[in-house]
Amino acid sequence: MSSIANTPQPPYYAVIFTSLRTEGDNGYTEMADRMAVLASEQPGFLGIESAREAVGITVSYWSDLESIKNWKANLEHLKAQKLGREQWYSSFKTRISRVERDYGIY
Amino acid sequence: MSSIANTPQPPYYAVIFTSLRTEGDNGYTEMADRMAVLASEQPGFLGIESAREAVGITVSYWSDLESIKNWKANLEHLKAQKLGREQWYSSFKTRISRVERDYGIY
Repeated sequence: MSSIANTPQPPYYAVIFTSLRTEGDNGYTEMADRMAVLASEQPGFLGIESAREAVGITVSYWSDLESIKNWKANLEHLKAQKLGREQWYSSFKTRISRVERDYGIY
Repeated sequence: MSSIANTPQPPYYAVIFTSLRTEGDNGYTEMADRMAVLASEQPGFLGIESAREAVGITVSYWSDLESIKNWKANLEHLKAQKLGREQWYSSFKTRISRVERDYGIY
């Protein structure tokens, strides 16, 4: 999660997850690391980028909407989502977007 | 930039800018703050979220592609983009995406 994701030519999809954390770790860091690994093992996964300061931003990239839907419904991920809503996040927003164009220097 | 952007109902657009910094500040922080303010003054701007650890992620939200194009062509922003390519970023990627759905807790 510490580099720029090496995504293919667009179009592909980006899930932009922005969150504010509650106080204390309460198992969050371990679960976040586990979810990054688990996500990377899912069909359609293309990459992930993550950083946190006042706000946390994690962007995961996917080949198609079906892959995103399957990842959201993953049983281990569902448990993490429940703990996120109940314990770890004071607020969050998930945005599903279609990447239409990209450019940069590498 | 320290909260979750209060964006309207989709569809809208997200510019996902991911970067790795070079060593030293070299005027970067001041310019980054200035660009966040300047962006917020542009037509079509909807919000911005930003965090940096190993990688920096800034997501700005816009009402339409024309607004993004105009912001990219803003003269003061063009100077910042040039300094970014030449001095501040060892690598970066900009992804233009269309937000199709969002949800969360607030």
